[in-house]
Amino acid sequence: MPELRQDPVSQRWVIIATERAKRPSDFKPPHQEKNGSTGCPFCPGHEKETPPEVLAFRVAGTAPDTPGWRVRVVPNKFAALAPGDDVAIENRGLYRTMSGTGAHEVIIEGPDHNTFFPDMAPDHAVQVFKAWRQRYLQLSRDKKLQYIQLFKNHGRTAGASLEHPHSQLIATPLVPVTVSQEMDRFKSYWQEQESCLLCDVVEAELEAGARVTGFNSEFLAFCPFASRFPMETWIVPRRHQTGFGDCDDVQLKQLGAIVQETLGRLKKAAGDPPFNLVLHTAPLHQDDVIYHWHLELLPRLAIVAGFEWGTGIYINPTPPEIAAQSLNEIKLDQEALA
Amino acid sequence: MPELRQDPVSQRWVIIATERAKRPSDFKPPHQEKNGSTGCPFCPGHEKETPPEVLAFRVAGTAPDTPGWRVRVVPNKFAALAPGDDVAIENRGLYRTMSGTGAHEVIIEGPDHNTFFPDMAPDHAVQVFKAWRQRYLQLSRDKKLQYIQLFKNHGRTAGASLEHPHSQLIATPLVPVTVSQEMDRFKSYWQEQESCLLCDVVEAELEAGARVTGFNSEFLAFCPFASRFPMETWIVPRRHQTGFGDCDDVQLKQLGAIVQETLGRLKKAAGDPPFNLVLHTAPLHQDDVIYHWHLELLPRLAIVAGFEWGTGIYINPTPPEIAAQSLNEIKLDQEALA
Repeated sequence: MPELRQDPVSQRWVIIATERAKRPSDFKPPHQEKNGSTGCPFCPGHEKETPPEVLAFRVAGTAPDTPGWRVRVVPNKFAALAPGDDVAIENRGLYRTMSGTGAHEVIIEGPDHNTFFPDMAPDHAVQVFKAWRQRYLQLSRDKKLQYIQLFKNHGRTAGASLEHPHSQLIATPLVPVTVSQEMDRFKSYWQEQESCLLCDVVEAELEAGARVTGFNSEFLAFCPFASRFPMETWIVPRRHQTGFGDCDDVQLKQLGAIVQETLGRLKKAAGDPPFNLVLHTAPLHQDDVIYHWHLELLPRLAIVAGFEWGTGIYINPTPPEIAAQSLNEIKLDQEALA
Repeated sequence: MPELRQDPVSQRWVIIATERAKRPSDFKPPHQEKNGSTGCPFCPGHEKETPPEVLAFRVAGTAPDTPGWRVRVVPNKFAALAPGDDVAIENRGLYRTMSGTGAHEVIIEGPDHNTFFPDMAPDHAVQVFKAWRQRYLQLSRDKKLQYIQLFKNHGRTAGASLEHPHSQLIATPLVPVTVSQEMDRFKSYWQEQESCLLCDVVEAELEAGARVTGFNSEFLAFCPFASRFPMETWIVPRRHQTGFGDCDDVQLKQLGAIVQETLGRLKKAAGDPPFNLVLHTAPLHQDDVIYHWHLELLPRLAIVAGFEWGTGIYINPTPPEIAAQSLNEIKLDQEALA
């Protein structure tokens, strides 16, 4: 059973992931991303190599855990957090632990090993986000869970240990510090300005224009003013909306389109770099939350090193205004964005 | 001139490092660490390829910026922050900026391209930390600077763009959030317990023993209870001491020894992995600070990916108790540690 531990100095939580347990000697051969579909457990025909599916969008009449699916969600075989009956907190002197109760799932985005998200048919891209939402809504009913983190790692150095296009969901039994700090900030801004911080950022960015990389009727994509990484891009709903679970079908369609466009531009502008695409959303089971959900795309084009670890300050060699200009110069294949 | 920018949502600061400016197209060839001493600007005989030295421990009678040095400190040619006359803060609507006033220096740890820190003569290792302290004390007199971050990146994926053994110093015009959050925690612990949090951690770790990897009369090395990375190790002074600048000659000698031992064990246990060694110390010019300086060694044996970015929670596949056991099994060459 995995265990959550809190550091007494930073108050940071870590998951000691016993299901992924490694002795230090296991690290000698560096972490490798498998290339090519041979032996890929996410390819059709290999459904028995994953735990049984918890959701699949598949051709009518095909059986679970067989080919015929378009998007397939399975529990992670090496889960960082796992279902449990309760959430126990224990204090051992200076140290605090919490049982590693939660969920860890993999959203296999499509049957084709080599078709990455920006190159999928537009209605297929929407189905990926439909799977995100369906699992989000299902798990959000569990009172033991406090937060649902959806994310996509692309490329070995961004943490993708398998190449087949996939995203992940990890549900945690606590509200992550990143989220609670942002919520505090939304709250104090609301108290001062009587408006939503991110609604105001969207308005300011549309007006300034210099950092905008794309928009449609429901979403704005822009390189944030204080980007940590070259070509960092945030995708924000233009409606004020607290949590991802509220995203409706009209929005979902526009979300698929703008994420495809944004990833497509990044791929062409920087030669398919590794990236993390990370959902920021409100915690579960809380009333009167002031928040505005969004996605943060972090291209791993600068290395987090000693200075960043020590200070929490990032060094970005590319101003977001220049990054946005370069991204906007990219010509995209129109039919992929139809 | 570099510029500091604050993100309105996370309140995180970033340095837009115009001296290191890159257009997105510059990223297409991946970041490469040069191998071998050919053309290395830090090797003896290449002193003119760096800015003029600000400190060197050298053979009597040798001229500045010529061979004959044992440890040499130079301004970083591609400085993230640079000296300036003042620190101007500007608010532009939702966004805040600060002038990128500070310092960025490189401590070239020795003349030999291939002798890494754990393999140096013990008195040489002490001289490296003497250079750290001397530059720290010199810069700490500047009232425009609020914090001095000393760190060492080892290996390409940990951010070392040059292979020649070196560490770095970046002085910032603000107190980093990482440090102010830790200070808050030290303060509240002091108010509750009337003792220093890290003094109590040192005592608890010595008593428990399971996570200790080394100690001498002045320092304790241990894998922290909530380690983020496999074999993460903290090196903490056993005396209560607020800032690194107070470290005396007796301590400096023991610091050289325990860092050599700790890095030597890591190198053997995990096959010379990339790492960051990061100083945590009190800010400058503040009275009545409650803090306890220390070094954090972060082996980059787990990848920071979407989950960590979204939540601030780390997934560590190796419990620190197992990491400490493996590190303790390593037999070190005694003469290197004499």
